[in-house]
Amino acid sequence: MHFIASLNDIRSLTRDLHRRGKIVTLVPTMGALHAGHLSLVRRAKADGGAVIVSIFVNPAQFGPSEDYARYPRNLDRDCEALAPFEPEAVFVPDASEIYPPGFETYVTPGKVAEEFEGSVRPGHFRGVATVVLKLLNLVTPDAAYFGQKDFQQTAVLRRMVADLDIGTRLVICPTVREPDGLALSSRNAYLDPDDRRAAVVLYRSLCCARELFHNGETNADTLVAAVREVVEAERRAEVVYATVVKPDALEPAARVTPGCVALVAARVGPARLIDNMILGPAGASDEELIQLALSSS
Amino acid sequence: MHFIASLNDIRSLTRDLHRRGKIVTLVPTMGALHAGHLSLVRRAKADGGAVIVSIFVNPAQFGPSEDYARYPRNLDRDCEALAPFEPEAVFVPDASEIYPPGFETYVTPGKVAEEFEGSVRPGHFRGVATVVLKLLNLVTPDAAYFGQKDFQQTAVLRRMVADLDIGTRLVICPTVREPDGLALSSRNAYLDPDDRRAAVVLYRSLCCARELFHNGETNADTLVAAVREVVEAERRAEVVYATVVKPDALEPAARVTPGCVALVAARVGPARLIDNMILGPAGASDEELIQLALSSS
Repeated sequence: MHFIASLNDIRSLTRDLHRRGKIVTLVPTMGALHAGHLSLVRRAKADGGAVIVSIFVNPAQFGPSEDYARYPRNLDRDCEALAPFEPEAVFVPDASEIYPPGFETYVTPGKVAEEFEGSVRPGHFRGVATVVLKLLNLVTPDAAYFGQKDFQQTAVLRRMVADLDIGTRLVICPTVREPDGLALSSRNAYLDPDDRRAAVVLYRSLCCARELFHNGETNADTLVAAVREVVEAERRAEVVYATVVKPDALEPAARVTPGCVALVAARVGPARLIDNMILGPAGASDEELIQLALSSS
Repeated sequence: MHFIASLNDIRSLTRDLHRRGKIVTLVPTMGALHAGHLSLVRRAKADGGAVIVSIFVNPAQFGPSEDYARYPRNLDRDCEALAPFEPEAVFVPDASEIYPPGFETYVTPGKVAEEFEGSVRPGHFRGVATVVLKLLNLVTPDAAYFGQKDFQQTAVLRRMVADLDIGTRLVICPTVREPDGLALSSRNAYLDPDDRRAAVVLYRSLCCARELFHNGETNADTLVAAVREVVEAERRAEVVYATVVKPDALEPAARVTPGCVALVAARVGPARLIDNMILGPAGASDEELIQLALSSS
């Protein structure tokens, strides 16, 4: 497992891997690795080839009042967690090399990035799209792996890859959850025990929407009202947004069809948490639901 | 010489060339090829490898009141002009495949794109940067060739390649001129004989600035005033902007040093023409001046 910090070194490494005819894959992360990240690495390993894991807390995707400075960082523990997967390299660039003085060219997503996280966090997806394009250009992977958990992020990146003719395949992997259903997130570390118990309400609200959908309810307003009601019954939680949208452009789905996605964001104690659920046939696996969402444009 | 219209086909071709270990180079054009374009193709051929020439009149870089519809197009003549150079392929994509419905992700340049052409043509460089990134992603060339004539464009693209860690080397080639000094441009076709004779005033104004610089004048205002005076002496010409700037960020150069660039734009009859000159030691070749500008950041 190479530990690489320099942009030139990662370029050399991946160029060499390509020359030797190897498949190269990338798992981009911000570190603070949990089982969700590791599921991406596991999937990349299973797909074959040399896996590069990048760890970079990207300042460009944090707003001025956000948690960039206090975002959890623990490189030693991250490397320990990765070791069993034997990635080809861990790429840990320095912000000063990713954004050198004079840096000013950005990738600007469109409508897909405007609402939901984009409206709560102005500039967030510009930062995400820009750093992901940079990582793809540095690593030139055949495939890159992202979690369904950040569903709007996957939509922004899928649009970017299509619009800019990027030769990397995006692989979206199911959200990994705690035993009670809470979606894993590095930001769960901000929760005290009471907030932690309350936080499961996001998952439960989505399960309620799914239940209604399975019972034949296709009116988006009804599903959204149910999500809101469940979250608002928890006094420690406050809905930031709740919606059911089409999976590509994230446009409103008046009538909910299989492949549509319920998105919810809520403030729980000091943290703003997000979660989502793809609606589809009862009994479909998470993988099948992702394929359904990705194929229903 | 392959004639390729589909995005999938150009991808397959260049992927195959890379697999066979070939160098691939790209000369992006909007067609209406003249000796300036052909000098880029010649240089690419001389550098070795398989040369792809793209011909695409990019709607995204034209403003709503600009000449997209009437921009000169003559594909047969372009192919005839290219044949002697035996490019590997001529890539002529359709606008509907480059910008399919739902397209919304752009590359947004920064300050380098704000003034001069960027201020006269809002959105122009966003369109240029976006289409060039798309072409680079489709062709994945080792090097791409651009003319010095569009100097600000080269600055925007050099910044983009650096900022987004793009693995393609940009090669800037000297401006090709008519015998009287007028820089070749597809838009020269818009000039009637009187305007054509008047248009040489751009070149003459730059020669005057160069002459002053060679004589020891390093005050930018003095050089700019001289450029303006020469252009304004021609009643058919009207200065749009004239400046002397540093070659990377195109920031004002109060004191002019070798590698700085004089930029001029003027309206002549129905056309808006641009030209530029890199200032450097007397007797330096165009190639040497370009290297001087590119290395003086």
